Amino acid sequence: MIQHPAYLVEPWCLRETELDLDVLAQSESLFALSNGHIGWRGNLDEGEPYGLPGSYLNGVYESRPLPYAEDGYGYPEAGQTVVNVTNAKLIRLLLDDQPFDVRSGELRTHERSLDFRSGLLERHVEWVSPGRRSVRVRSARLVSLVQRSVAAIAYEIEPIGGPLRVVVQSELVANEVVPAAGGDPRLPAVLEALLCSESHECGDARAALLHTTVRSGQRVAVAMDHRIEGPSSSQVSAESFPDLGRVTITAALEPGERLRVVKFVAYGWSADRSGPALRDQVAAALAGASRMGWDALAQEQHAYLDDFWNRADVEVDGDAEIQQAVRFSLFHVLQAGARAEGRAIPAKGLTGPGYDGHAFWDTETYVLPVLTYTAPDTVADALRWRHSTLPMAKERARQLGLTGAAFPWRTITGAECSGYWPAGAAAFHIGADIADAVVRYVEVAGDERFEREVGLEMLAETARLWRSLGHHDTQGQFRIDGVTGPDEYSAVADNNLYTNLMAQHNLASAADVAERYPDRARRLGIDDEEMAAWRDAATTMCIPYDDALGVHPQAEAFTSHEVWDFGATSADQYPLLLHFPYFDLYRKQVVNQADLVLAMHLRGDAFTNDEKARNFAYYEALTVRDSSLSACTQAVIAAEVGHLVLAHDYLAEAALMDLDDLEHNTRDGLHVAALAGTWIALAAGFAGLRERQGTSGFAPRLPVNITRLAITLSIRRRRLRIEITPDTTTYRLIDGDPLPILHDGQLGSVSTEIPLVRPTGKVPPSEPPTQPFGREPLRRQTVK
Amino acid sequence: MIQHPAYLVEPWCLRETELDLDVLAQSESLFALSNGHIGWRGNLDEGEPYGLPGSYLNGVYESRPLPYAEDGYGYPEAGQTVVNVTNAKLIRLLLDDQPFDVRSGELRTHERSLDFRSGLLERHVEWVSPGRRSVRVRSARLVSLVQRSVAAIAYEIEPIGGPLRVVVQSELVANEVVPAAGGDPRLPAVLEALLCSESHECGDARAALLHTTVRSGQRVAVAMDHRIEGPSSSQVSAESFPDLGRVTITAALEPGERLRVVKFVAYGWSADRSGPALRDQVAAALAGASRMGWDALAQEQHAYLDDFWNRADVEVDGDAEIQQAVRFSLFHVLQAGARAEGRAIPAKGLTGPGYDGHAFWDTETYVLPVLTYTAPDTVADALRWRHSTLPMAKERARQLGLTGAAFPWRTITGAECSGYWPAGAAAFHIGADIADAVVRYVEVAGDERFEREVGLEMLAETARLWRSLGHHDTQGQFRIDGVTGPDEYSAVADNNLYTNLMAQHNLASAADVAERYPDRARRLGIDDEEMAAWRDAATTMCIPYDDALGVHPQAEAFTSHEVWDFGATSADQYPLLLHFPYFDLYRKQVVNQADLVLAMHLRGDAFTNDEKARNFAYYEALTVRDSSLSACTQAVIAAEVGHLVLAHDYLAEAALMDLDDLEHNTRDGLHVAALAGTWIALAAGFAGLRERQGTSGFAPRLPVNITRLAITLSIRRRRLRIEITPDTTTYRLIDGDPLPILHDGQLGSVSTEIPLVRPTGKVPPSEPPTQPFGREPLRRQTVK
Repeated sequence: MIQHPAYLVEPWCLRETELDLDVLAQSESLFALSNGHIGWRGNLDEGEPYGLPGSYLNGVYESRPLPYAEDGYGYPEAGQTVVNVTNAKLIRLLLDDQPFDVRSGELRTHERSLDFRSGLLERHVEWVSPGRRSVRVRSARLVSLVQRSVAAIAYEIEPIGGPLRVVVQSELVANEVVPAAGGDPRLPAVLEALLCSESHECGDARAALLHTTVRSGQRVAVAMDHRIEGPSSSQVSAESFPDLGRVTITAALEPGERLRVVKFVAYGWSADRSGPALRDQVAAALAGASRMGWDALAQEQHAYLDDFWNRADVEVDGDAEIQQAVRFSLFHVLQAGARAEGRAIPAKGLTGPGYDGHAFWDTETYVLPVLTYTAPDTVADALRWRHSTLPMAKERARQLGLTGAAFPWRTITGAECSGYWPAGAAAFHIGADIADAVVRYVEVAGDERFEREVGLEMLAETARLWRSLGHHDTQGQFRIDGVTGPDEYSAVADNNLYTNLMAQHNLASAADVAERYPDRARRLGIDDEEMAAWRDAATTMCIPYDDALGVHPQAEAFTSHEVWDFGATSADQYPLLLHFPYFDLYRKQVVNQADLVLAMHLRGDAFTNDEKARNFAYYEALTVRDSSLSACTQAVIAAEVGHLVLAHDYLAEAALMDLDDLEHNTRDGLHVAALAGTWIALAAGFAGLRERQGTSGFAPRLPVNITRLAITLSIRRRRLRIEITPDTTTYRLIDGDPLPILHDGQLGSVSTEIPLVRPTGKVPPSEPPTQPFGREPLRRQTVK
Repeated sequence: MIQHPAYLVEPWCLRETELDLDVLAQSESLFALSNGHIGWRGNLDEGEPYGLPGSYLNGVYESRPLPYAEDGYGYPEAGQTVVNVTNAKLIRLLLDDQPFDVRSGELRTHERSLDFRSGLLERHVEWVSPGRRSVRVRSARLVSLVQRSVAAIAYEIEPIGGPLRVVVQSELVANEVVPAAGGDPRLPAVLEALLCSESHECGDARAALLHTTVRSGQRVAVAMDHRIEGPSSSQVSAESFPDLGRVTITAALEPGERLRVVKFVAYGWSADRSGPALRDQVAAALAGASRMGWDALAQEQHAYLDDFWNRADVEVDGDAEIQQAVRFSLFHVLQAGARAEGRAIPAKGLTGPGYDGHAFWDTETYVLPVLTYTAPDTVADALRWRHSTLPMAKERARQLGLTGAAFPWRTITGAECSGYWPAGAAAFHIGADIADAVVRYVEVAGDERFEREVGLEMLAETARLWRSLGHHDTQGQFRIDGVTGPDEYSAVADNNLYTNLMAQHNLASAADVAERYPDRARRLGIDDEEMAAWRDAATTMCIPYDDALGVHPQAEAFTSHEVWDFGATSADQYPLLLHFPYFDLYRKQVVNQADLVLAMHLRGDAFTNDEKARNFAYYEALTVRDSSLSACTQAVIAAEVGHLVLAHDYLAEAALMDLDDLEHNTRDGLHVAALAGTWIALAAGFAGLRERQGTSGFAPRLPVNITRLAITLSIRRRRLRIEITPDTTTYRLIDGDPLPILHDGQLGSVSTEIPLVRPTGKVPPSEPPTQPFGREPLRRQTVK
């Protein structure tokens, strides 16, 4: 674990006051800016040193052949990898011919801060060149949440102590060299020289480049313009080449004088539109942004975020790190989804190239639940993207001999890109996860138009998949054999409980929604017989139970398997998948990540309280949390079954996943789902948020160290604020019609006039369960 | 299915009287010559046309990286592919400048024959060139079973009707162009320009080439010399180039004159020895062979085969095709193993590049049982090869986190080359298959020295593997979870019955043999505790049973799975693996090949007669036989449970697998295990051969069409001949001390003086089981 003593604990900001080149790549992920369409890693303005240079456009990928040592029917032939597009962040600075590079000279002061309210990444340095020239540089950077094609940088230079001749080169650079990857399968494939120049142009303080990806044939345009304020003797020139656009500004600065360069950037891409059309599109976006100017762009950014925080803020008293982390998390989750609009939300957002830039089930199961309660419009967008990929998913199902839709395990465009079917194609639960996100969104946002236009079709096509994937055995049980659940240390098992319970919900929901929209159902070819078949499969769903142990097996026979020898496994053998073969992991009782425990969160209605407690204890002893998706779910169920201290530990693990680089791969991008998990651990964990038949329910309880927890939620187009103290929970409706809510199972109502005040639940102390040897979460005792 | 009307049905010969270029590649496999060390496909002497040119040296391979779309711990990094080595078969002929090519001119007569007693491939053609010159060419070819480095060709030209000027080019050609492969995963990887020239030389009528494989660094030497008889005006010259050695003979032949060229070839290869050492080695072998001359080589070949047939012949009255096929099969099984000596016996022998030239469990489970009773010394050689790979197998086990030895699923050298672990590394049963072959060989050949020196260590290291692979569950059962059995349409299941029963035998045998050789056991680190642990695991082995259905599930939960929709599967969707994804095959009740049924053959003691009958009927309805390994085992159990007509059908399927090209891939090499299956179906099927605690047992019974079956067997260094007629079975001992045998479970004895005569068992007629729709075996009714 890497600690960053340079990061200060502040409620609304991530601030670094020293530059540690050893963790530069991690900081680039943490300081990444994105609006869900454009992503800029927090690389230094001057480009070098870097950990991993990165500029991404959501949906821009390159194809690569997927090789197999032994081929098989239905294996995907092509993979997709996110492309590091033209770098438009670059602003190089020369002082009297010496390049500004923090590795040389003396870095007198260094500060970078990412403000969650302004949305700006600011930097302030004082540097003395090897030639003893001193300079102060301030820069601020934004990727506009309001204008999705636009980003901007304000860059200001001021001499210290004496006059200074400076040259600023503001650039667009295509085909940057990216460091090579190692052997970790979670790392991205590195593709070289992907962008093929189509045209370039320049003039005044402007330049523009147009490129095409070689194999996937996507066209990427980027343009920049500048506003320059400085001494009248300053000179500006522009030039362009196939892979380089450059605007050069020279100035002689006397003490007290400043050179301020504001760089406006616009990106555009398309697989269909022509080069001239795309060129004009970015020119128009650029003209709009530069006419507005920096201050107006920054103001509308702030206003956008004020609105978000008014709908979504979380206050945590008693654990300042968690307070910071949950806002950091919400900020990045918002960045990942805000303007994705018709594109996927990848596992790393647009903060790095990890997992090849693919989107997984993480989006629907971890990210969208948070956005559903905080920025519901982004959820509609994300699910409409999934819906747009239905033709591919239906074709894939047909290829696999199934009916309905088989959504891809990992993808950029919607095409399956998984090259290892036991952990890819066999993880059919993604269909039910998408259905679950649809149902939750419709229920919480009350978006009936979406339900009718988009939701029903997605529910129906996923229900059809389950119907063709499962079968009734001779006892009449509906079995789903040979599939893979969430736990990546098991695969291709019969009746994975998570899968079966989620499929059950999927099937029943599809029938319910089809019944509500009979005309639309008819147009989708759904008849009474099909609805009855869905209900029948749901009703007879096989739910294995181990009577001897009194627990639910994760999948049939799971509890008969050998328990992993945790005592013989050393700390440096984690994550296990890098040190043990799949065959060994799969056939033993060892759990990578919440699987049955996740089922107890998302299908809590299918378990008694006693079962939850016993199951949780059983799986705690087997779960190693090599996945960043696990801790938040363990926090939720730990809180539900009364282990509040443990829940706090797991909350912290999710919250600090990237801030503390717990999995040592934050360099490749943030764990967006784990960040979302911070909110989930607080809202579903300590506040006990669950949807129950159209009503939001809460079961608030706090661990000793957290003295107050307040969460603002968007529910059915209203804002609800819940404030929990150890003794009292207060529900306040900020706007809208009165809202029924459940508090500890009791129905109540809250209106804008009358808050609902209830006692906060108390939990009797109980013996917490144990984890595998060496895999206990870090204790949160230090925070009082 | 391709019928070859040109193949005549003869008892001792495979003869073709027409040349059909459409099935040329198949004929090259059928007419392949090999001694287990050198393999020559039956390519035409003049090289073209060809289906697939092929010359192989057992053990010569090239390495290639095994690519993975997603990498995983313990995946093999390098594959091995058999190399088409220097072609020394080539004899080109020109008539007055016109090359002899059967595609031009007129082929007046054509005959090729492979004689199972002489071991010669003979060819006789009369051809008229486009320029109207007529010629008669006779050639005979042998790969010496006595001198394993040597092959030879006698080539004779005779003008018809008029004088003829002829040029004969006898060649060595390295790096022949091989046709590209398609998408079938069973096809070999094609590697180009593998051989790097090291030296070449020529003189008189001799030439020699020395090459090295590029990546695996193996050195291959080949040399040829000639004896020429013809008109005194004939001229001979020799030349050599890096990839070509050529001896050119020109002659002017008057009617009645002949040109006879005898070509002697010697091959050698080594990964260790120097170029000069290897060159001298082949020169010495060549000198020996050319001094002997053709006639002596052919005589010793015949003598070798006479000896073999005296020990191994099988006579079948009533089905002439089967008579021919069983001798064809035995001949090729002998060729595959005769002189392998320290190398593997590949699945295709040395008859083609299919399966990359790899050896699988086929060798121990199908080929060695036949050789154990017919050429036992070759079995000791084959098992000593396995033993020589123990260090690799132990290292592989360690890599997989296991103790003992994990033998490779597919290999040339002993290193695992499987690139798909669910059907490779997970098929641990190969360890028990090897152990079974060891036990059978020791028992039948009575080779105690082998048992002590080699057998015990192999049994112990495989037993250790099972002990670490399985575990005792809370009920005390020894479970083996997450492994793959023989059936390739299932994978990674718990308690595969075949695997568990074979492991049980492996564990018990290891303990028994260790007890017999306590000193040797101590040196191998086997103590009483370990032996007790083996016995304990064997005793408590988990053997699932489905009470409701009254059958054994192939693996736990198998009988709960959905039954494959055979009615919806069309004939052109077989083999299923080319038309359906693994995930779908694995999770349904569909069986590629005998799995539980094979367990009933090899572990018949673990089943009651009723269980055998019920199990057989149950699995018959699920088994599609996409594998060539299945029919013979189905024949064995069909015979045992009394379905003699069905057993005859399956016998024919195994026997005609290659002669009728039933699986459409005979072009890539013969199915050596299926060929062995012909003998197995007769000996273990109709003769009912089983070993029971040190005594060979028989349970003879004949189907209606077979009127007499006589088999000669080597048992405990004696020759036993069993002759079965519908009414009487006669056992005759040809040499050696009296031998106890079991006839239908009754102990008897046979000596050289006194045969044992017993009534042949009768089977009451019963309703035969059914097969999946469209997968019934061809009926054998046509043969009376």
